[in-house]
Amino acid sequence: MSIQEVWEAFRSELQEVEEELQGSLRSHTALIPDVARHLLGSGGKRLRPLLVLLSARLCGYRGREDRVLGAVVELIHSASLLHDDVVDHAEVRRGRPVANLLWNNQTAILVGDYLYSKALRLAVGLGSVRVMETLSEASLRMAEGEVLDLVHSGDLGLSETEYLDLIEAKTAALIAASCRLGAVLAGRGVEQEEALYRYGMGVGMAFQIADDVLDYTAEEKRLGKALGKDLREGKVTLPVIRFLEKGRSEETQRVRRLLAARQFTAEDLADICGMLRDSGALAYAVSRAREYARDAVAALEAFEGDPLRQSLAVVAEYVIDRDS
Amino acid sequence: MSIQEVWEAFRSELQEVEEELQGSLRSHTALIPDVARHLLGSGGKRLRPLLVLLSARLCGYRGREDRVLGAVVELIHSASLLHDDVVDHAEVRRGRPVANLLWNNQTAILVGDYLYSKALRLAVGLGSVRVMETLSEASLRMAEGEVLDLVHSGDLGLSETEYLDLIEAKTAALIAASCRLGAVLAGRGVEQEEALYRYGMGVGMAFQIADDVLDYTAEEKRLGKALGKDLREGKVTLPVIRFLEKGRSEETQRVRRLLAARQFTAEDLADICGMLRDSGALAYAVSRAREYARDAVAALEAFEGDPLRQSLAVVAEYVIDRDS
Repeated sequence: MSIQEVWEAFRSELQEVEEELQGSLRSHTALIPDVARHLLGSGGKRLRPLLVLLSARLCGYRGREDRVLGAVVELIHSASLLHDDVVDHAEVRRGRPVANLLWNNQTAILVGDYLYSKALRLAVGLGSVRVMETLSEASLRMAEGEVLDLVHSGDLGLSETEYLDLIEAKTAALIAASCRLGAVLAGRGVEQEEALYRYGMGVGMAFQIADDVLDYTAEEKRLGKALGKDLREGKVTLPVIRFLEKGRSEETQRVRRLLAARQFTAEDLADICGMLRDSGALAYAVSRAREYARDAVAALEAFEGDPLRQSLAVVAEYVIDRDS
Repeated sequence: MSIQEVWEAFRSELQEVEEELQGSLRSHTALIPDVARHLLGSGGKRLRPLLVLLSARLCGYRGREDRVLGAVVELIHSASLLHDDVVDHAEVRRGRPVANLLWNNQTAILVGDYLYSKALRLAVGLGSVRVMETLSEASLRMAEGEVLDLVHSGDLGLSETEYLDLIEAKTAALIAASCRLGAVLAGRGVEQEEALYRYGMGVGMAFQIADDVLDYTAEEKRLGKALGKDLREGKVTLPVIRFLEKGRSEETQRVRRLLAARQFTAEDLADICGMLRDSGALAYAVSRAREYARDAVAALEAFEGDPLRQSLAVVAEYVIDRDS
C-alpha cells in the first residue's frame, strides 16, 4: 500500500474536513478568512486530520465528529505556524511568503489567536470533557515546547535528551493527541486510547526528526526549499547535536564557530552539510527517526490483522521518506 | 459600601486565587514564571476573579472551584495583555516596562500562548462542558475583538456602533463570562446565568469606555499615566468619535489632520484633550459608561434585597470612577 492509496481511501472524509475548515472561517472581519486561507490553502498535507480519521476508523467509530476534530487539530496546528513564523522571523513557508510578511506581525499574532480560540470553540461543541482534556493537554505541551525552543535558541550545548523532550512537546504531542482523539470518539476504553497515543507519539517524533534532517538534505530531493534554515534561525537539531558529539574535533570547532556567529556563506553551508553527512550524523538521525516509526507501529499490536493498521504503518513510513 | 470594603470581604478568597495563579505557573522552564510574575505582580486589580467570586456567592455557590475559575479568567486576561502589548508596540503597563521590552516580542507571544493554554487546561480539569462553553465563547469573542481593533486602527470613520461592538468583543465578553461562570458553578439554572451575564456585559462596557476616557484625563487624577496613548497607537475611541461627529468643524478638521499624521507635540495633545472636554465629548462618553453601569445593576433585579447585589452595584460604580 502507498501513502497515495491511503489519502485516496479517505478522500471524501478529508474533503469534509476541508468544508469544516472553510465553515469555521466565516467571520464579519474579512482579514481572518483572508489570512487563514492563505495558510490553509498553501498545500499543507493535513497529516493530523488524516490521523484523526484513521484512528477513529480503526477503533470502530462510525459517526461524523472525526471530521470536526480533524478541522480542530488542523486549526490548532495553523495557529501555531502563524506564531512560529513571527517568532522565527520566517519569510517563506511551503514556497509562499508567510502571513507576517504579506500582512504584518500583528495580523499573524491575532489571527493565530483567533484560529486557536475557534478550534477550541468547535471542539467544546462536541460536549465531551475527554476530548477537551486531550486537546488542552496537547496545546499546553505545544506551548511549553515553543517556549523551550526559544530558550534553547542558539544553545550549542543542547543534549540529545533535551532535544527529544523539546520536539516531543513542540510537535509530537499534537500528533499523538490527534490519534488519541480518534479512539476517544470511538469510546472503546483507555487501552485503545493509549495504544493510539503511543503510535502518534512515535509518528510525531519521527516526523520532526525527519523534518530536521530535511533541513540539510532538501536541496538534493526537491528544488526551492531553503537549505540550513534551522541553522540561520539558531535552531540546534539532532544532526548537529550528534555531529558536535561525535565529529572530528577540528571540524566540530569550525562548526561551533560558524553556529555561534550565525553568519554563513553558501560555501559554509555546503561544508556543514557535507560534514554532517560524512560524519554519519545525518544517517544517525534518520536511524533514530526509523526507530520511532517502528515503535509507533509496534504500539498497534492489539490491532494485528486490521487493514487500517497497515494504513497507519504506511503513514509512519511516509513521515520519514517524504521530501517536503 | 465602598469598593475597599468589597475587596476586604473577599480578601481570603482572592488570596486563594493568587495561590492558584502561582501554582499554575510552576514549570521546568524558568522563563514562563518569570514573565508571568512580572505581569501578574504588577498590581492588576483582579477585577475578573472578584466578579467570579461575587457572582458565585450571589447564586449560592459554596464550593471552591470559583477560586480556580478566578485564576483561569485572570490568566486569559494576562495572555491577552501580553499579545496586546506586542501588537500595540506598548512600552509601559501599570507603570512598569512591558514584557516585550524587558524580554522581547517572541517571549511575550509564546508566554502569552502558554498562559492561555494553561488557563484552558485548568478549566477543563473542572470537568464541566458548560464552563468550557462559556470560556471558549468568550475567548473567541475576545480574539475577534482584537482583530477588529487592529483592522480599525487609525480608522477615523469608525462609528459609535462599530466602537461599541468592538469593545463588547474585546473587553466586555470576558468580564461577562466571569460573571456567568459564578452562576454556572452554582448550577441554579439559565435565568441566573443570563442575569449575571447581562450584569457583566454592562460592567465590561462601562469599564472599557471609562478606560478610554481615562486616556484623556488620567494626568489630572494620577501622575505617571501616559496621556493620549490611544491616539499615538491610532486607536479611535468614544470621546474622539463623539467629538468628530459633534465638534465644531474647524476644530474637528484640525483633529482629523493630527490623527491622520499620528504625530503630536505635547501641545497638540493638550489641545485635543481641551477640545474633547469643551465640546462635551468626554462628558458624553462618561454618561454612556454610567448608562451601562446602570443597566448592569438593573439586570440583577431578581436578586433584590441580597446584600451581595449591593456589592456588585459598588463594583459597577467603581469601574467608572477608578483613576487607573
